[in-house]
Amino acid sequence: MAVRKISPNLALDHLVSLRQAAGEPIVHLGFGESRLPVFPGLVERLAEGADRNSYGPVPGAPGVLRAFAEYCARRSLPTDPDQVVVAPGSKALLLALQLVVPGDVLLAQPCWVTYAPQAVLAGKRVFGVPVPAECGGVPDPDALRERVRQARAEGGDPRIVVLTSPDNPTGTTATADLVRRICAVAEEEDLLLVSDEIYRDVLHDPGFEYLSPAEVSPSRTVVITGLSKSLALGGWRIGAARFPADEAGRRMRADVASVASEVWSTLAGPMQAVAEYAFDEPAELVARRDADARLHGAVARAVWRIAEDAGALTRPPTGGFYVYPDFEPLREPLARRGVVDGETLQAHLFTESGVAVLAGVHFGDDARALRFRAATSVLYGSTREEQHAAMAAADPTAVPHVAESLAAIEQAFTKLSAG
Amino acid sequence: MAVRKISPNLALDHLVSLRQAAGEPIVHLGFGESRLPVFPGLVERLAEGADRNSYGPVPGAPGVLRAFAEYCARRSLPTDPDQVVVAPGSKALLLALQLVVPGDVLLAQPCWVTYAPQAVLAGKRVFGVPVPAECGGVPDPDALRERVRQARAEGGDPRIVVLTSPDNPTGTTATADLVRRICAVAEEEDLLLVSDEIYRDVLHDPGFEYLSPAEVSPSRTVVITGLSKSLALGGWRIGAARFPADEAGRRMRADVASVASEVWSTLAGPMQAVAEYAFDEPAELVARRDADARLHGAVARAVWRIAEDAGALTRPPTGGFYVYPDFEPLREPLARRGVVDGETLQAHLFTESGVAVLAGVHFGDDARALRFRAATSVLYGSTREEQHAAMAAADPTAVPHVAESLAAIEQAFTKLSAG
Repeated sequence: MAVRKISPNLALDHLVSLRQAAGEPIVHLGFGESRLPVFPGLVERLAEGADRNSYGPVPGAPGVLRAFAEYCARRSLPTDPDQVVVAPGSKALLLALQLVVPGDVLLAQPCWVTYAPQAVLAGKRVFGVPVPAECGGVPDPDALRERVRQARAEGGDPRIVVLTSPDNPTGTTATADLVRRICAVAEEEDLLLVSDEIYRDVLHDPGFEYLSPAEVSPSRTVVITGLSKSLALGGWRIGAARFPADEAGRRMRADVASVASEVWSTLAGPMQAVAEYAFDEPAELVARRDADARLHGAVARAVWRIAEDAGALTRPPTGGFYVYPDFEPLREPLARRGVVDGETLQAHLFTESGVAVLAGVHFGDDARALRFRAATSVLYGSTREEQHAAMAAADPTAVPHVAESLAAIEQAFTKLSAG
Repeated sequence: MAVRKISPNLALDHLVSLRQAAGEPIVHLGFGESRLPVFPGLVERLAEGADRNSYGPVPGAPGVLRAFAEYCARRSLPTDPDQVVVAPGSKALLLALQLVVPGDVLLAQPCWVTYAPQAVLAGKRVFGVPVPAECGGVPDPDALRERVRQARAEGGDPRIVVLTSPDNPTGTTATADLVRRICAVAEEEDLLLVSDEIYRDVLHDPGFEYLSPAEVSPSRTVVITGLSKSLALGGWRIGAARFPADEAGRRMRADVASVASEVWSTLAGPMQAVAEYAFDEPAELVARRDADARLHGAVARAVWRIAEDAGALTRPPTGGFYVYPDFEPLREPLARRGVVDGETLQAHLFTESGVAVLAGVHFGDDARALRFRAATSVLYGSTREEQHAAMAAADPTAVPHVAESLAAIEQAFTKLSAG
C-alpha cells in the first residue's frame, strides 16, 4: 500500500499551527480559508436545524433544493429543484461526479490542489493545459483544443474540463469572452464542463460582468459551489451542485445521488437548514457577504502591490482571496541563495522570513517556476476581536495587526531581490 | 454511463414518505433509523460548536480524537488519539478504507446494503459467505476459510472481511466464541478484519459479553462506528474509525486521512463538538442511550414474537432494532398468491397490508429466500409526542400507537399463512 499524502494545503496549515503553538511568529499565507467569524443568523439556523436528525432524501430536503434552485435562477441560471444535490462540501460532489462520468480530465495549470488527486482516485488520466495570460482558472481555449487532440492521439479519452472562476490559486476571474471561447471548444470537442463557482460571491467588484459557462452551454455544464468561501464556513462543510436540465443531466444527477447514498448518505440535517437560509440570500446575510468580499479585495490587492513592488509579475486579483506572484524576474539573485524552483522558494520564505505560502507545483504548475500562492484571507487576524476590527475598518490594510503582517510580507518579498 | 441506483433502504424510505404524504397508512419497517428525538445536551453542543468554522486537522481536532480514544479504552481497547479518524458518517470511512487497502472483500450473507456497492466503487470483487445458524453479521468461520481458499483458486485476492455486530439486518450479536474463531481464520489466512460496531451501544441486554475482534487480533482489526444508531443521530452524520497501533495501522490511518483530505476534508466543526461530548459519555447521555437500547429491545422482541407466531423462523434479536424473519415454512401458501421470493414477498406486504420491509436480496441474501428485514425502530411514532410516550412507557409495546402498529403487523404476517 503506497503511503499517500494529505492534501498539501491542509498539511501546510497543520504545520503552521504547530509552529504557532510553539510561539513562533508566522505570517500564514498558505491556507485558502476565509478566517472570519460566522454570521449570527447562520448559527441560529444551525441550532434550529438540530431536530433534523432523520436521514431524509439523499440529494437534500425539498427546502434546500428549492433555495439553491432559486439562488441559481437569480444568477441567470433557471433551475428546477430536481437539478440540485447538496453535500458535505463541494469536494464530495466533485469526486462523485468523476466516479460517474467516464473519460479523462483536462485541468488548468495551475489549478486547485484537489482536482488532480480526485481524478486519479476515480481512475482517470489528467491532462494539464496552460492558462491564458489574462487570468487563471480556465485553460487557454486554443491550447485546450490542441491538448484534446493531442491527448486523443496519445490514446487518452479527454471528456471533462474543470473551470474555476474566480480562481484558486490565481485570484482572477474569467471574462465573458473567454468563457464563450471555452464553451465553443467544448461544443466542438464534445466536452463536459465542470464549473467550480465556489468563489462567485467573492468578486471584489460587484459590477464585474460574470458569465457562467452554464449560461452559454447549459446542456454540457455542471455547476458546483459551496458556502465555505463566501460565508467563511469552511469548517461547516456545505456544498451544492446543479446539473443540466436535460435527460443526460438527469441521469448524471441520479448517478451522483447513487454514489452519495453509498458514501455520505446526505448533508447533515442541521447544515441543510443553514444552507436553505443562506441560499435564500436574506438581505442581512448578503450585506455581510458583500462586505467580506470588499475586505478580501482590499487585502488581496495590498499583497498584490507588495509583490509587484518587489519585482514579481502578478495578475491583479479580482475575486477570492489569493495572489499568485511569479518571481521569475528575480531568478538570478534567488539562485545565488539556492532558490531555484517553487519548492525552494516556499521553503526559503518559511525559514528565512516566517512567511508560509504554497508553491505553484502543488497546483500542478511547472515545478521550476518561481511561483506560489499567497492566501491573503488569513491576514485578518487570529482572534475574533482582530477579525471584527478588520471587518469594521474603512481601510482594513491600515488596521494595526493587518498592517504589521503586510509590513512583514513586504520585508520578506523585498529581501528576495537583495543581492 | 450506466444508471446507478439509490441505496435501496434510502430509496424505500423516500417511497414510503411519498405514500404517507398522500395520506396512506403505512407501517414503515423498511428503514434502519432510530426515529427518536435528539438528546438536548447534543443540541447544546452543536450550537456551542458553531464557531468551529475553520477546517482544522483532517482526522479531527485533538479533543474529539482524545474522547473517542478514551471511549475505546473503556471498551477494553486501549487507544491513542493518533489511531483515530472522525468523518461525516462511518460510510465515508468505510469507502476510504476500501480505497486504500488492496485486495478483495468477503462479506457475510446477508449484510448491510452499502458494503457491496462500496467494494465495487473501490474496484474490488465481493465474495459472499453464509452466516452461521446462531447469528448474522459475521461469516461462518468454516465457510469463511473455505471461501477464501476457493476465491484464491478462482484468481481472486480476498484480504478484507467486514463484520457487523450487533448486526444489520439480522439484529443479532456474535458471541465471544464465534469472534475468536473468526479471528483465528483471519490469522491463518492473513485477512484484515473491519469491525462495524455502530450498534454496539444498542445491545438489548447490558450484561451481554461483547467481544470486539480488535481485542483478539489488534493488529489486523479496524473498528468503525458512529453516533447515528445509539443516539438517534442518523441525519447528523458522525462516524469514527480506530486503526491498529502498529506501523501498518499507522500507514493505513495516514492513507485514509489522505483520501479524506481529497473527499470530505474533515467532519464539520460543530459535529466534532457534538462527537467530543458524546464519546466522553457523560452520565446523563448514557442514561438516555441505555433507555433507548431497552426500548429498541422491547419493540424488536415484540415483532420477533409476532413473526414466530405467524410461522416464520427468526433468530431472537439481541442488538440494534431489526428482526429478520424467514417465511420458508409458508412457501406453499405464499406461492399460491404469487409470492415466490424475497422481492414478491416485500411487494405483497406493501400492497396488501401497507407494511414496508426490505427483502433479503437487498442485503445480498439468496433472492429466492422468503426473508426480509423489519426495522422496528420506526414504530415509536412519527411525532415527537408519540416518540416521547414510547420512551416514557414501562411497556412501550402497550402504548396505543405502538400497539396499533404491532396489531397491523400481526394481521399482515398472519394473513401470509392464510390459505
